[in-house]
Amino acid sequence: MKVLVIGGVAAGTKAAAKLKREDPSAEVLLLNKGANISYAGCGLPYYVGGVIHDKAELIVNTPEKFAMLTGVTVQCGVEAISLDRAAKTVTARSLQDGTESVHSYDKLVVAVGASPVVPPIEGVGLKNVFFLRTPEDAIALRETLESGEIRRAVVVGGGYIGLETAENLAARGIRTTVLEMLPQILPGFDPELAEYAENRLADKDIMVFTGEKVNALVGEERVERVQCENRKMKTDLVILSTGIRPNTAWLQDSGLEMFKGTLLTDLHGRTNDPSVWALGDCAMVHNLITGESAWSPMGSTANIAARSAAKNMAGAECDYLGVLGTAVCHLPELNVGRTGLTEAQAAAAGFDAVSATCVVGDKAHYYPGSGEFIIKVIADRSTTRLLGVQVLGAGAVDKVVDVAVAAIAMKAALSDLANLDFAYAPPFSTAIHPFAAAVQILQNKLSGALVSVTPAEYKAGKAEGYRVVDVGMQPSIPGADWLDLTAIGGVVPGYAVDEKLLLVCAKGKRAYLTQNRLRHYGYTDTLVLEGGVTVNGSELVK
Amino acid sequence: MKVLVIGGVAAGTKAAAKLKREDPSAEVLLLNKGANISYAGCGLPYYVGGVIHDKAELIVNTPEKFAMLTGVTVQCGVEAISLDRAAKTVTARSLQDGTESVHSYDKLVVAVGASPVVPPIEGVGLKNVFFLRTPEDAIALRETLESGEIRRAVVVGGGYIGLETAENLAARGIRTTVLEMLPQILPGFDPELAEYAENRLADKDIMVFTGEKVNALVGEERVERVQCENRKMKTDLVILSTGIRPNTAWLQDSGLEMFKGTLLTDLHGRTNDPSVWALGDCAMVHNLITGESAWSPMGSTANIAARSAAKNMAGAECDYLGVLGTAVCHLPELNVGRTGLTEAQAAAAGFDAVSATCVVGDKAHYYPGSGEFIIKVIADRSTTRLLGVQVLGAGAVDKVVDVAVAAIAMKAALSDLANLDFAYAPPFSTAIHPFAAAVQILQNKLSGALVSVTPAEYKAGKAEGYRVVDVGMQPSIPGADWLDLTAIGGVVPGYAVDEKLLLVCAKGKRAYLTQNRLRHYGYTDTLVLEGGVTVNGSELVK
Repeated sequence: MKVLVIGGVAAGTKAAAKLKREDPSAEVLLLNKGANISYAGCGLPYYVGGVIHDKAELIVNTPEKFAMLTGVTVQCGVEAISLDRAAKTVTARSLQDGTESVHSYDKLVVAVGASPVVPPIEGVGLKNVFFLRTPEDAIALRETLESGEIRRAVVVGGGYIGLETAENLAARGIRTTVLEMLPQILPGFDPELAEYAENRLADKDIMVFTGEKVNALVGEERVERVQCENRKMKTDLVILSTGIRPNTAWLQDSGLEMFKGTLLTDLHGRTNDPSVWALGDCAMVHNLITGESAWSPMGSTANIAARSAAKNMAGAECDYLGVLGTAVCHLPELNVGRTGLTEAQAAAAGFDAVSATCVVGDKAHYYPGSGEFIIKVIADRSTTRLLGVQVLGAGAVDKVVDVAVAAIAMKAALSDLANLDFAYAPPFSTAIHPFAAAVQILQNKLSGALVSVTPAEYKAGKAEGYRVVDVGMQPSIPGADWLDLTAIGGVVPGYAVDEKLLLVCAKGKRAYLTQNRLRHYGYTDTLVLEGGVTVNGSELVK
Repeated sequence: MKVLVIGGVAAGTKAAAKLKREDPSAEVLLLNKGANISYAGCGLPYYVGGVIHDKAELIVNTPEKFAMLTGVTVQCGVEAISLDRAAKTVTARSLQDGTESVHSYDKLVVAVGASPVVPPIEGVGLKNVFFLRTPEDAIALRETLESGEIRRAVVVGGGYIGLETAENLAARGIRTTVLEMLPQILPGFDPELAEYAENRLADKDIMVFTGEKVNALVGEERVERVQCENRKMKTDLVILSTGIRPNTAWLQDSGLEMFKGTLLTDLHGRTNDPSVWALGDCAMVHNLITGESAWSPMGSTANIAARSAAKNMAGAECDYLGVLGTAVCHLPELNVGRTGLTEAQAAAAGFDAVSATCVVGDKAHYYPGSGEFIIKVIADRSTTRLLGVQVLGAGAVDKVVDVAVAAIAMKAALSDLANLDFAYAPPFSTAIHPFAAAVQILQNKLSGALVSVTPAEYKAGKAEGYRVVDVGMQPSIPGADWLDLTAIGGVVPGYAVDEKLLLVCAKGKRAYLTQNRLRHYGYTDTLVLEGGVTVNGSELVK
């Protein structure tokens, strides 16, 4: 069997290596455009920040070492330029001398990745305007930073890579601003949590402007100013992180089915041509919940899909059911993670989505370094199937996400999860695990034990007409009356039992306890503000 | 409804508080023996080590604050001494003045906890011999340590609390030795992994002696020596951490069913008397996999079981299906965690257990602070249902455990888990998640793609007669021939194709790759040593 692999970063190398293990008699040729194969794309922001010291660390494998280890033949500096599906050949061109070569295959793997989208604006060619996609990009960017001439930087694009880069720039003492064209940063998070993250970034001197379109980069030789729709700002450096586009232009007329330039595949990673597989950032996979095609241009997806596809190429029958849109991102004192569907996505997929947002401890409160998670749990109302989780906090958000990944994949209902025997010791967790605690709060909401508004509902005016009552341990909301839970022993003077009361505390828990007691004494229309002042801010009185 | 709760640490306070929320009209009286309620038992070793500075941190709630917050009536300094089930009364005695009081109930919650087992040996009453069960114990111990007179300490008992205490003593610069009567420390871990942990503790100057029975503590006024079966050792301090026993002597003739002094309960937390619930360290719960009664004297179980039982007492019908024996423990540069069944437990429960032990990265290898996990995955051979996980490493072992908890609870098979979309970014994980990687390795083993011996099988002699071949990147096994994977292009001179070869590398991965290539060239009897030199040590040549 003659297998041709086009592309050698994550998906291409993984597919080639695994295929040679599954079928050592296969003849595998890997063509790679760049000089480096198998580099650590996800590590680039950390090289920029100096967290990763040595550029050699970015290269996972050299072509020579990879070939020796795997038995795959590797050619670098070769770009595929056309596919003849009938003849089963790919024509490639040498980047050194422009010579063309034709390579035949029995099975073809397209793993050509994606390239940065260059925004159609003036000034992108100025000096000190960077993309961050390859080791070369990162090395050039860090050299510029180390020149000592950069005091201000603008990152255009508030996705994960943009924000990781902003964190690493700020950590070097550079005044960093993030501009995002969409109404929020952090795609995949519900807006109210993205806004929370924006505020925390501002606390760390990373200013974020959303809904802000960049019209031009301005400067003489090097970039000096960013011209936006609503403002202009001085800068010494611009990083364009405005998305990526699959490198599939050469396949446009191939007859391979695509969606917006991304190759469509089946559960085996195969395109509509049974001899052609597509993997990595140039290919679609599937959403594990909805079964629909999904784009997941992540190193993790590339590896997992490639491994599965290689087994299928070697004759196995194993479906790769797909992704959950999982992501995790390290920000200054605020990690953010998510998996599954957002509320909006869940509704779009036909679920009757219900959510709870809560603030829970990440470790035993008395253990040094303990902090809080903000967790939003989303489930289907009728089945209580868990659909999605979003979590923010200084601690191990990845743990909460990973538990949710397993639970969602196994179609767990809330009652399957609320009482699980998760790992507990003070350095690691709380006696009732933060994930379980969040699940329990959503259960309380569904059972009616908790009557609440979410931060999103609150922003949308669902508590309009309710009187804000500060029920925190101490008064903390300017202008609101304070009510002490422990003093409630009946109807409270000044509060009619049918008055609309919005109960607000620091996190939501004390408001829940207060609601419980007020209801016992006949109060009929109280609402707990989920996430309290922590998530919603203290400017609550309208 | 009149509810009487006996005991007010974790289970008692949780049950009482939750019940008052579920049914605010319930009249709940909580009797507590000590002066403190709701203290942080799991935090005591960290107070001893000074990781938790202030003793006030150990007290989660005062009786007064708890009563105000919950509406529960609390009496401290009162010990239950007898139960009259027919009359539905409990007689209690004041510890201050010895007066007795009789309390009637509609529903009774027994949450009296457990007390340290006092070993029946000479010298346990000497000065500087401590238990570590209550805040008072921890405060007295730390005062003694801070006197500056303690240079050596012996911890008797190699369970979780004993080891956490040993870590905290060592961190204070005290020469610490752990003595364990059983053949291994870390109950719930398979022996080969416990032995690995023993060696790592020795590297950190915490000496561990297993199979070592203490016969006497010797000294004039204060303890000066520990007299064991096989050795004696000087010490300035002894901590007895030899287990706990439920405080149920007063119920011996009550007719409540027990197993070794622990109250048996149903899935609602109810004893054989329908008016009596039992929760926390004095009660049994169930094993989630086997359904059998299980003892889980942990703060987490106490909270979860109490919450569920309170709902049932208030009229709900919710089963608490139980525990997985989950545990996590912080040791010096080696966290250890486990959940589910060990190989031996799985076999005893009727499963055809199969396992894989592997060494995988805990974060992107180039990210600072990255390290390795040793993960042992246990599954049922025919169904490939995941049954248990044990994990050791400097990183977030709790994450791997928690994912396994969700997976085991949902009865996941290996194929449900191998390709999941777990959270990946370099500061958090590897592109193929360590848990998924471990699952994949066990899949390879079950499919025959990997032919291996486990560390336990190796110790038991299963590779007897095999020639040890060092297949690491560089030679590292004294006396063994070294074979370079990348140089294998056919039958290797000096190695007959039918020779029995045990392939050993650093972690197991390169041995797997080597085996794959050797098999391709006709080798018929090779074995990979799982976990390689990392788990098995380098003294492999017999």
